[in-house]
Amino acid sequence: MTESFPMKSGEGVYSYNKNSSLQRDAAYSVKEMIREAIVENLDIQTQTFLIADMGCSIGPNTFFAMQNIVQAIKDKYHSQTSLNSASPEIEFHVFFNDHVANDFNALFKSLFSHQKPYFAAAIPGSFYGRLFPSCSLHLAYSCYALQWLSEAPKELIDKKNKGRIHYDGASIEVWNSYVAQFDKDMEVFLSARAEEILPGGLIILVLPAIPSEIHHLQIGYRILKFLESSLIDMVNEGIIEESLIDTFDLPLYFSSAEDMIRVVEKNGCFSIEKMEVTCPQSSIDAKSFISHLRSGLEGIFTKHFGSKIVDEMFERNLEKSEEISTWLKDEYYKTMRQLFLVLKRKINL
Amino acid sequence: MTESFPMKSGEGVYSYNKNSSLQRDAAYSVKEMIREAIVENLDIQTQTFLIADMGCSIGPNTFFAMQNIVQAIKDKYHSQTSLNSASPEIEFHVFFNDHVANDFNALFKSLFSHQKPYFAAAIPGSFYGRLFPSCSLHLAYSCYALQWLSEAPKELIDKKNKGRIHYDGASIEVWNSYVAQFDKDMEVFLSARAEEILPGGLIILVLPAIPSEIHHLQIGYRILKFLESSLIDMVNEGIIEESLIDTFDLPLYFSSAEDMIRVVEKNGCFSIEKMEVTCPQSSIDAKSFISHLRSGLEGIFTKHFGSKIVDEMFERNLEKSEEISTWLKDEYYKTMRQLFLVLKRKINL
Repeated sequence: MTESFPMKSGEGVYSYNKNSSLQRDAAYSVKEMIREAIVENLDIQTQTFLIADMGCSIGPNTFFAMQNIVQAIKDKYHSQTSLNSASPEIEFHVFFNDHVANDFNALFKSLFSHQKPYFAAAIPGSFYGRLFPSCSLHLAYSCYALQWLSEAPKELIDKKNKGRIHYDGASIEVWNSYVAQFDKDMEVFLSARAEEILPGGLIILVLPAIPSEIHHLQIGYRILKFLESSLIDMVNEGIIEESLIDTFDLPLYFSSAEDMIRVVEKNGCFSIEKMEVTCPQSSIDAKSFISHLRSGLEGIFTKHFGSKIVDEMFERNLEKSEEISTWLKDEYYKTMRQLFLVLKRKINL
Repeated sequence: MTESFPMKSGEGVYSYNKNSSLQRDAAYSVKEMIREAIVENLDIQTQTFLIADMGCSIGPNTFFAMQNIVQAIKDKYHSQTSLNSASPEIEFHVFFNDHVANDFNALFKSLFSHQKPYFAAAIPGSFYGRLFPSCSLHLAYSCYALQWLSEAPKELIDKKNKGRIHYDGASIEVWNSYVAQFDKDMEVFLSARAEEILPGGLIILVLPAIPSEIHHLQIGYRILKFLESSLIDMVNEGIIEESLIDTFDLPLYFSSAEDMIRVVEKNGCFSIEKMEVTCPQSSIDAKSFISHLRSGLEGIFTKHFGSKIVDEMFERNLEKSEEISTWLKDEYYKTMRQLFLVLKRKINL
C-alpha cells in the first residue's frame, strides 16, 4: 500500500479548493495542446469512451480538464462522421481517481452542482497500481500529480539525509535514491496503465519539471528550502529535535524530459507522441504561493511533525514573504518548467 | 433532481453502520438465491463483468453482497471452462451507487481495509435516472432501497394528507397518489436499466413487501404509525403545529408481487425469471428496531421537522418499547414480507 497525501479539503484559507490557481493555470495552459493531441493521436473507434483523471483531487480543475477532453473527442468524432449518418451519439464515462483518503464527498458535491456531458464515477486508490480492468480505458490524464512518489526512498528513513527534508542540496547518494524511486514508481505506473489502456489509447501527463540543462545539479522544487530552513531554525531554538528532520524526506521528485524518455523507453509499452517543455507564467505573490504550498503539503508534514510545528513552519515562511517574493522573480520562474507529455499505447508490443 | 435521503453516517449509536443488521439478515437470507439466479439466468460471455449495487449505503452489507455475486459468477464461468484451457481470468468492476449525499468517504475507508476480488468504483446519483453508458452493465443489484420513492407524491404537498405522514390508514386518494408515484418511478428505473444493461444481463432486487392478500388494505410499513402518533401527541401538547404534519409525506412505498409484475410488464424490456416472497425472520428487540428505523429515517424527518422535534419523536417511541415489542410479535412479523426478484434484460425487444 502506497502512502496517501490528499490535498487539504474543505473551504478554509489553506484548502486546495481556494489554493489551486497554479494548477488551474497549468490546466488552462495545456487546453489547446490536449485538443491537438486527441485529434492527432487518439486512435480508437468506440461508442463509449472511458477517461480517467489520475490524481484529480477535489476540483474544480479536474472538471475543466475533463470537459475539455470530452469536447475534443466529440469534435474529432463528429468531424469524421458524415452529416447524414444515423450513428448514435458517442457517450463518455469519466472516472475521477485519487487516494482513498481524498475527500470524494466534496468532489461529488461540486460535480453535481452543474450539468455535465458524461457519466461520472470515482475510482479510489493509488495510481501506482492497477485501478481498472484490462483493456477498459481509452485515455488517462494526470495533471500535477506524478511529481508525488509512492513513498520516500526507504533507505533514507534511517537518518541518511541529515538536516534535510529533500534531495535539493543533499548528497549524491540521496539524489540517487530519489532517482531510483522515481524510476521504480514510473515503471509501476506505466505497467499498470499498459494493462488498462486499449491499444491506440493515450496517456496525457502535465507535471512540474526541471530543465535538462540544470537537472544534473540535483535541483528540486526549490521553495522547499524555505520550509527546511524554518525547521532548522526551530532546531537551533530548541523547539524540535534535529532527528525529526533527519528522519523525514518529502516523497516529491521533479523530473526532466530525459527522465521521462528513459522510463517510457524502458517500459516499452508506449510511444512518445509529443513532449513539450514550457515556462509556466504566473503573477501569484509570495503569500499566495505559501498558501498553495500549504494546501498541498500540510497533510504530509503534519503526519510527521504534528500540527503545531507545521503551523509554525508556515507562519515563519509568511514572515519571509519579501525574501520569497524576490526569489520567485529571480530564481523560481527561471528554473521551474512544465512538462507536457502524450504517450500512445502501442498497438503491437 | 430527485430528493436525497442518505442513511445516517458515522459510527454513532444511530448510525447505519451500527443499525443495519436487518438489511444484513436480508442480504444473508438471499445469498443462495442469488447464486442460483446467476447460475441459471445470467446469459453473457465477457472477460470483464460490470456489476452495480444501487443504493449501497456505506457498508458493510454491500461488500458481502458484491463478494457473493462475484464468487457466483466466477464459479459459473470456471465450471464452463475446460481445465486445460488457457483463457485469461475473468475480471470484475464493481460500482457502488447511492445518492450524491451518501458518505462515500466512509464507504471507501471500509472498502479498502481489506482485500477484494474486484476493481472498485463509485457512481454517485439517483438510480431513478441514467447512471451508466448504454450497454455497459451486466448485473444490477439493489437490496432494501427501491422502497424509497424518488419523492413523495407532489399532489399531497398541499396538505391533502391531513394528520398523516404516510398512506397507511389514509384516504383512498392518498393511496392512489402513492401507487401512481411508485409506477412512475419504477418505469424510470426500469427504462434507465434497460438502456444500461446488456441483453442477457440481470437485475436482482430484494425489498420489503406486503403480501398480496392484504395489500389492497393500503397497508404500509406499519411501524410508521408509532412515529405518527408521537407527532400527533406533540401537536396536542402544543409543541408543534399540525400543519407541519399535514405537509409531510414519507416517500416510502411497500409494494406487492402484483405491483412488481404490473410495472415490469408495462415496461416490457425485462422478463421475470424468478419472484419469491418470503417471511423475513428476526429476533431484534423493540429498542434495536427503533434504532434501525432512526438510522434510516432521521435524515428526512430532520429536514422537515428539525432535529429537536425528531429527537423527541424517537425518544417518545423508546418509551413505547413494550407496546412496540408486542406489536412486533403479533403484527409486524406476520405482515411484512421480503420480495426477491430476478429480471433478465430481453435479448430481442
